[in-house]
Amino acid sequence: MLSDNVLMPIDKSTRDIALEIYNHIKDLPIVSPHGHTDPAWFDENKPFENPVELLIKPDHYIFRMFYSQGLRLEDFGISRKDGKEVETDPKKIWHKVAENWYIFRGTQVGLWFDAQLKNVFGYNKAFTPETADELYDHIDNCLKKKEFLPREICKRFNIEVIATTDNVGDTLEHHRNIANSDFKCKVVPTFRPDTVTNPELHPVHKHIKSLAKQLDTEINSYEKFLKVLKERREFFIANGATASDHGVTVPRTYDLEKSECKDLFKKVLTNTASSKEKRIFCGQMITEMAKMATDDGLVMQLHAGVFRNHNSRIQRKFGNDKGCDIPVKCDYVNGLHPLLDKVGNNRNFRIVLFTMDETTYTRELAPLAGHYPSVFLGPPWWFNDSAEGMKRFRHAVTETAGFYNCSGFIDDTRALLSIPVRHDIARRVDAAYLAEMVQIGRLSKADALEVAYDLTYTQSKKIFNL
Amino acid sequence: MLSDNVLMPIDKSTRDIALEIYNHIKDLPIVSPHGHTDPAWFDENKPFENPVELLIKPDHYIFRMFYSQGLRLEDFGISRKDGKEVETDPKKIWHKVAENWYIFRGTQVGLWFDAQLKNVFGYNKAFTPETADELYDHIDNCLKKKEFLPREICKRFNIEVIATTDNVGDTLEHHRNIANSDFKCKVVPTFRPDTVTNPELHPVHKHIKSLAKQLDTEINSYEKFLKVLKERREFFIANGATASDHGVTVPRTYDLEKSECKDLFKKVLTNTASSKEKRIFCGQMITEMAKMATDDGLVMQLHAGVFRNHNSRIQRKFGNDKGCDIPVKCDYVNGLHPLLDKVGNNRNFRIVLFTMDETTYTRELAPLAGHYPSVFLGPPWWFNDSAEGMKRFRHAVTETAGFYNCSGFIDDTRALLSIPVRHDIARRVDAAYLAEMVQIGRLSKADALEVAYDLTYTQSKKIFNL
Amino acid sequence: MLSDNVLMPIDKSTRDIALEIYNHIKDLPIVSPHGHTDPAWFDENKPFENPVELLIKPDHYIFRMFYSQGLRLEDFGISRKDGKEVETDPKKIWHKVAENWYIFRGTQVGLWFDAQLKNVFGYNKAFTPETADELYDHIDNCLKKKEFLPREICKRFNIEVIATTDNVGDTLEHHRNIANSDFKCKVVPTFRPDTVTNPELHPVHKHIKSLAKQLDTEINSYEKFLKVLKERREFFIANGATASDHGVTVPRTYDLEKSECKDLFKKVLTNTASSKEKRIFCGQMITEMAKMATDDGLVMQLHAGVFRNHNSRIQRKFGNDKGCDIPVKCDYVNGLHPLLDKVGNNRNFRIVLFTMDETTYTRELAPLAGHYPSVFLGPPWWFNDSAEGMKRFRHAVTETAGFYNCSGFIDDTRALLSIPVRHDIARRVDAAYLAEMVQIGRLSKADALEVAYDLTYTQSKKIFNL
Repeated sequence: MLSDNVLMPIDKSTRDIALEIYNHIKDLPIVSPHGHTDPAWFDENKPFENPVELLIKPDHYIFRMFYSQGLRLEDFGISRKDGKEVETDPKKIWHKVAENWYIFRGTQVGLWFDAQLKNVFGYNKAFTPETADELYDHIDNCLKKKEFLPREICKRFNIEVIATTDNVGDTLEHHRNIANSDFKCKVVPTFRPDTVTNPELHPVHKHIKSLAKQLDTEINSYEKFLKVLKERREFFIANGATASDHGVTVPRTYDLEKSECKDLFKKVLTNTASSKEKRIFCGQMITEMAKMATDDGLVMQLHAGVFRNHNSRIQRKFGNDKGCDIPVKCDYVNGLHPLLDKVGNNRNFRIVLFTMDETTYTRELAPLAGHYPSVFLGPPWWFNDSAEGMKRFRHAVTETAGFYNCSGFIDDTRALLSIPVRHDIARRVDAAYLAEMVQIGRLSKADALEVAYDLTYTQSKKIFNL
Repeated sequence: MLSDNVLMPIDKSTRDIALEIYNHIKDLPIVSPHGHTDPAWFDENKPFENPVELLIKPDHYIFRMFYSQGLRLEDFGISRKDGKEVETDPKKIWHKVAENWYIFRGTQVGLWFDAQLKNVFGYNKAFTPETADELYDHIDNCLKKKEFLPREICKRFNIEVIATTDNVGDTLEHHRNIANSDFKCKVVPTFRPDTVTNPELHPVHKHIKSLAKQLDTEINSYEKFLKVLKERREFFIANGATASDHGVTVPRTYDLEKSECKDLFKKVLTNTASSKEKRIFCGQMITEMAKMATDDGLVMQLHAGVFRNHNSRIQRKFGNDKGCDIPVKCDYVNGLHPLLDKVGNNRNFRIVLFTMDETTYTRELAPLAGHYPSVFLGPPWWFNDSAEGMKRFRHAVTETAGFYNCSGFIDDTRALLSIPVRHDIARRVDAAYLAEMVQIGRLSKADALEVAYDLTYTQSKKIFNL
Repeated sequence: MLSDNVLMPIDKSTRDIALEIYNHIKDLPIVSPHGHTDPAWFDENKPFENPVELLIKPDHYIFRMFYSQGLRLEDFGISRKDGKEVETDPKKIWHKVAENWYIFRGTQVGLWFDAQLKNVFGYNKAFTPETADELYDHIDNCLKKKEFLPREICKRFNIEVIATTDNVGDTLEHHRNIANSDFKCKVVPTFRPDTVTNPELHPVHKHIKSLAKQLDTEINSYEKFLKVLKERREFFIANGATASDHGVTVPRTYDLEKSECKDLFKKVLTNTASSKEKRIFCGQMITEMAKMATDDGLVMQLHAGVFRNHNSRIQRKFGNDKGCDIPVKCDYVNGLHPLLDKVGNNRNFRIVLFTMDETTYTRELAPLAGHYPSVFLGPPWWFNDSAEGMKRFRHAVTETAGFYNCSGFIDDTRALLSIPVRHDIARRVDAAYLAEMVQIGRLSKADALEVAYDLTYTQSKKIFNL
């Protein structure tokens, strides 16, 4: 197991308090209100294939770093769009990983990996070229055991609820199957309409047509488009969804006149919108979704500020989500003003904000969350979902927004086995932070224990209606 | 009393040094070069009404947080513009506050409040629903005692000088009365012309007319406008002012041709200026004020980077200053260039810069202050006037700008009883920071003691000519 | 000597680990891949003149701070462009420095200076008006000794390789002389073409003409211009250069059509380009240099984000590089996209990024370096080349980019005697940082020792091909 001292305060008396807080929360159920696990895993409950398929090939955090050091993605088994050969031998790939694993020293990925080995697989040696074979076999054997089936993992690590992220047109059959099974863990879908609402990142005109076809209807007007979206939201809600999720390049919203919306929609539908019009349409749709949320109560998650596929060569060769997305500056204050002016005071509306632009923590996000009843802060996201990133977040936002305008930890991962360790790391960081607050007289220990409990368990359930 | 350990270093040997530094400065007189206390308090010396009128209703830091948690401002007694009923029973309001006080855990407001209870009111229990009644009565009793009259508070906490903020047209009679009284504390006005110089935030055309009427003159040309402003500055100086204060949305200045200024002024006076023209006029006026300062020596304070009344619904219902102001990005380097190019090298000119955009600390503010003889840095402001915010400020600016390009602490408050605790917190944070510098060999203890003294007492007096 | 505890962790057990790491690296050879020392020093090996000529007059870090406190540059012997008298008596200047030295308390300059006194000159008292004379004489005597000649300094402090920065048209004769001498330290030039490629900062039209004249050729077309640049790069490479260096106001690159480039070049050559066209030309030239680098392998250094000569009065009176350069916001993600899209995946290309905009560390630089094989991060630069700045850098970038996408320390100085102390400070900061990583279980001590070695010695040699 990961040593108790990991990420804990170095000072003995502070560490003792931190450990008391950590022990108070470490075994609480895991609430995971946003992530990208595959619902089929929990429905079908099949074993994971092998260490490379499980841990390396799906993880852009890992292979982006190898690429940054001049290694080829092909050597890690990443498929090419042109179908040309890539490495397929998992043992060869595993050795390549082992030889280059030193580049992850000091990184968050290194910590997650190490913690998985110890806490999930019970393997306590370091990952080196020397231990590579032994470790491969160890994990491979584990994966063949019943206790490493997806449902067993959830049980073992006390995952109470897990939200997946699902395309607007998804049938959600896995979610229904799971709900009708005896699986105790709640697996809920999340409504993600980006493929039809964000023309900056998606060929929306095509997806709207496919969606219409799938639903056996026509989507030829803005009103009809909104009606279909409203119905899809209801369908998701009927299948357990409590939240929607939206990815945008920058957090810019609009509240346009109906006639403008209609014009924009026509252009988007005929794929004749300019770049600027696409951005405006996207921002208008965020506001439309927010307006619907005031009726149907889906909690809105806004993931903003990413230049997707910055490396166009890699996108052409290997496709999306290959570690080439790079964060950009955000302006939430001006950007969200139209949306918040419209629905920011609505008692039925909640929006959870995420960012990779840490400069907005003290300047924008904490002040917004500390005023608007609808605004909550998601935890540090993506590159900032790291021990230091979480610590910086708490230091930056707590004094202005307090703890109760913040969601609990969100793992946002597609790696099931990393979920327990990610939550464990967040609990450690919070315990360490709170212990220091106690030591410098800013929180009583009783309050710190209560806050720790709330941040770990209560807050996410409350904010996401889980 | 607040424990000695509050905000102090956790490490024993560092804490000992910090306490030595803190003890060296904790009883020094309070110099408060900028704030929003009411001069009538010191002139009339009437008792404060009750705990709610004193501590809750005037404090947008407090009720904005309640609002962020879905509570209604009406329930805290905040008056509506439409005159509709709000809660008036102070005890009921106090209980509402107590029930929800947990949301302030870890916040700066929580720390200020706790410190006031202990250091000002001598009440050492926590504020909870259980202690609410007792605490209310305790404070209420205090307020009836002579020692809680405004002048006694100043005496008890050794406030040597306090600056108020006063509209361009103010008669300053309270200041004159105070000066002619036997009250030892110096209460000086600060010249704040925003209502006639910043058309972005104020109906300047109306205020210029009122000002003209009040002064029994006409303001129908740019020259005359400048002349009136010059005279008002002189009037303020004659009544003790040593500084002016200017609030702007972004720190953008201009140095336009006279003819352009005249045109702009006409448009502003007739309320026909566009948004952009209003911004330019505002920026030009900052430069005009700076130019006058080279003559009359008023120290210029620039408070920049706030989107005022971001929540327009709250503004419509409750008015300005209701916790809906949100910071925005600032660019001091390009924005102040016209002003600094004009007067930045003038030996008679001083400008003290404030920001809520912490990203400008290392990139812009410290480099500017470490070069221009006229530029000084104000301490962390508003949401950043917090223990962590002050610590981040010192860490960010000291290595480049040193200590002597920084003003001492500024409380910027309208809450008289919070002044001693705010200064106390700043002194603790500085002591802790300096002790760490001593421990890592970057300052001798003798130098640290001298720096602590200068930051607490000398610097503000020197920079603000107090 | 500087005490072992300087910049070390305060906690004893962490400090012990830090000291073990520090002792492992403190005597490693100095690799200095970028700086501004004068190659004539190493060629001619003449003694430095006196303390003021060596330590004060060339150091804009120092006299900018004096200027910020209202002192006159003339009093520190800084020459005026109009030839008017300035102070010439070094002892008088030295006393002026001593009297005002307190303003450097807590600054990086203060630390460098103190460390030089102790580690280079073996003088262990503080610099005060009382010690000023003694210290002046002490340094003056040192400078007359053989061991303070430039080559001896390099030997004594184990400088293995030092890169200078040299104008595109430089003859590099000093470098050739040094290479042909028995001086063991490698002194290599760096190709800096800004004077002919950056019309934002330089009268490029004049410099292109001078360059053509010097080379006895004509530069009348874009093709010819590129050809000349290519040849100059080759000339630099033949004389030992392994890198180029580029200073730009903002990191904005372009990849324009040939015809557009030709048009731009004509305008630049005839000095008829608009401000915008100058900026575009500059950004296009960065891409051209990058393209050439894919052929000739010169490692590209990009120093971006400075408003040069912000104080135009000082520039007019005293010239460039007088402490009036102020950092500005940077956008590397959009700005470098054209360049990276062109050559970012090229195996022969390397670009090392520098910034003074720390907001880009987690948001932009670490993500870029953690993906592109060509992108490496330079250490904190200029105002951020400080103990705290280096610490913030490691905390901000390591979790995302790891250690191996970062160059080792770069001193970037024109002050030869500060080189050993600057490298020493960087080694201390890294040791302290790594020790904390060990203590919280994020690195094994063995890994920490290896990382420390690599950051101190291996990484810079590898990235810069030294």
